[in-house]
This record gives sequence, C-alpha cells and structure tokens, in this order.
Amino acid sequence: MAEETKHVPNVVIHRLPRYYRHLSDLLAQGTTKISSTELSVRMGVTASQIRQDFNFFGGFGQQGYGYNIEHLQNEIAEILRLKDGNSVIVVGAGNLGRALANHPGFERRGFKITALFDKSPEVVGTVINGMTVMDMSNLEEYIKNNRVDIAVLTLPKSGVQEAAGRLVDSGVKALLNFSYAELNLPENIAVENVHLSDPLMTLSYKLREMETEGK
Amino acid sequence: MAEETKHVPNVVIHRLPRYYRHLSDLLAQGTTKISSTELSVRMGVTASQIRQDFNFFGGFGQQGYGYNIEHLQNEIAEILRLKDGNSVIVVGAGNLGRALANHPGFERRGFKITALFDKSPEVVGTVINGMTVMDMSNLEEYIKNNRVDIAVLTLPKSGVQEAAGRLVDSGVKALLNFSYAELNLPENIAVENVHLSDPLMTLSYKLREMETEGK
Repeated sequence: MAEETKHVPNVVIHRLPRYYRHLSDLLAQGTTKISSTELSVRMGVTASQIRQDFNFFGGFGQQGYGYNIEHLQNEIAEILRLKDGNSVIVVGAGNLGRALANHPGFERRGFKITALFDKSPEVVGTVINGMTVMDMSNLEEYIKNNRVDIAVLTLPKSGVQEAAGRLVDSGVKALLNFSYAELNLPENIAVENVHLSDPLMTLSYKLREMETEGK
Repeated sequence: MAEETKHVPNVVIHRLPRYYRHLSDLLAQGTTKISSTELSVRMGVTASQIRQDFNFFGGFGQQGYGYNIEHLQNEIAEILRLKDGNSVIVVGAGNLGRALANHPGFERRGFKITALFDKSPEVVGTVINGMTVMDMSNLEEYIKNNRVDIAVLTLPKSGVQEAAGRLVDSGVKALLNFSYAELNLPENIAVENVHLSDPLMTLSYKLREMETEGK
C-alpha cells in the first residue's frame, strides 16, 4: 500500500507522472513485470534513484523478479489521485487554449475540461469541443457554482497575473501556467509552469553534439 | 570557457535550458551575481548537483562571491548553441501548430519558425503569423532547398510516424514530438517528446497533498 508521507521532494513529485506514463506504455505493449534496472534505462535515471523515489511511498515491494507493472501503475495513480478525477477550466481560448481543450490525452487520465473562458467578443460564444466559450466576466460565478480543481492559463502574458489573482480569490488552488510570466501568488497555491522552448533548447544542444561527433 | 566534453548525461542536458531560463529571469530583474546555494533554491536541485553539472563543461569558475550571471548565461547559451540560431518547421497546422507558430518565446531564443505544413485542403494556403501553410506534398522539396534544423510534430497521432519518417529521410536530424506516439526512428536522430498531461498529474498530486495538510 502507498503510505501517506510528507516532505516528498519536488523532483520526486515531478518524476511520478513520468513513471505513470512509462508504466502505461509498458502495459499497453503487454509487458507485465519490470526490474528497477530495466525501468531505469527507460526513464534515464539510476536504479537506486528509482528505489529511493518509491521508498517515499512505502517501496511498492519489489520482489526478486522485479515490479508487477499493473500493481505499480495503480499505486502511482492512487498517489497522483488520478482516479478521483480533476475538473479543469481553460482561461484563454486562443490557439493554445483550443488545442488543449481538444487534447485527447487529458480525459484518459481523468482530467476533464469543463469550461473555457476568454475576454475577446469574437471568441466568446464560439463552440470548442462541445463547450461554449464563456466571457471572463462570468469566471467568479462559474467557479462558485461548479467544481474546479485546476485552471489552465493560456492567456497573453499581459493578462495572466490578473486572471490568476481572480482564480485564487475565487478559491482555485492549482494553476497550470503556459504564459511565460512569473506569477505572484500566495504560498498555498500549487503552480506548474510549462516552458515550451525548453525542449527546443535541448534539441539545439543535441543537434550540435551529433555534428561534433560526426553522426 | 566552456570546454567540449563528451558523455554528458541526459538529465544534465535537460537541466541546461532550465539554468538558462532562471539566469535570464535573474538578469531581467537586474541581479548580477548568484551563489550556487541561491541558484539551487530557485532550481529545486542541490548546490552540489549544480557544481557537478557545471563541471561537465569546465566549471564556469565560481569565485568566493558566486557566479557572474551574465557570464554564466552566455556560457550556457554557447553550450546550447542558441547564438547560431535554429530554423524550425511545424508539421501539422492545427490549433497546437498555430499556437506554436505564434509563440513569442521562441524567436527570442533564436528559434525561427520558417514554414508550416498540413495536409488538410482547408488549412493549406491559410496564413499564420505571416507564413502561408504549405501542402505536405511539398515537404521534401522545401527541406531540399531550405535550412531546417528542427521539425515540430503537431499532427494527430495516426499520421506522426509517417511524417517523422519523411522528415528523417529528407535529412532532418531533430524532432520535437507533441503527439502522444512513440516514434520508431534511427539512433542518430534527436527526439524530444512533450507530454502536456505531466504537469496536470503533478498538480493533481499537489492539490491533494495540500488538502491532507489542511492548507
């Protein structure tokens, strides 16, 4: 059983979704067991790191032949609370907001996009993936009357701090921020920032490394 | 000076863009020096990890009072080869492709989106951020006649393997894959996969952790 444990380092928390994904892929391929060494090769971390990570949650009882993948995936899903489901709203219904509202991978993991908001009169009232985009002026009322676990911020940088403040004032406790703006928020709000240029920078490095090595 | 070094672990390579971003933010705030301890708090890694990471590239000569941020940012930009610039094409001009073509953070770091491709007759010929979307049938000819460093894959999962194969056959060596499909590619191709549901899963965890702690 996964035990409730405190002080799990942020880096470990950020590895949990990656474990979950890799285990899901293995299951989809029909694999049922994996050793921490094999998992470590897939994940690009050391086997001892994996054991240390899992020890924060009780260890998941690896046996001689390795981990039972389905069991491990279930444990991690429980730790991530994926089975409870999450109600997600998208604030900013531009191209990125519309792309996320249509993203097929979210609902499969229990993240249901339930509403979209925008301030532009041309966008408000349009229908995206079965949802009518609402006006930003209705944000507080919507949150008051509906369950909102997570708000995704896909607004231009200039409007994001104000929108984040309104969401927090309305009681939203988790924000996924796609705008490249550092948000100034109370400590008890969970924020994840997505930086789309990071993987491009990594590719820039790898490309020149390959050229140097003559590949 | 950053030295050319081999066998830099993948995790270190993936931290380089994060260092670059944090240093850019510090510079924008007018900060000029930082200790490895202060940088480690911002980054959420240990100070000794930072020193180990930097040692792969010659160490960047930290002095008693810490790192000179501008110097350090320049060294990392050089390692990431950001100053050479990167010519990027977007394959799949749906919502996500359009969002990326309009992303303000890319060009600032030297990633210039130079062309977009799609196979849908309704999308081909439309103009996105000053670029006319080209038909997929022109992909090979475009790559033959233009510099393409990186291709961004924003197609539906069903079409991504075929498109990736055509890109690689045409000589593209670096792919940024947004579709949730594992690509089967030669070893000498650099691929980065973006998983947009990872940060949602992290928020799901943090949300329940806060509830448990009564925040």
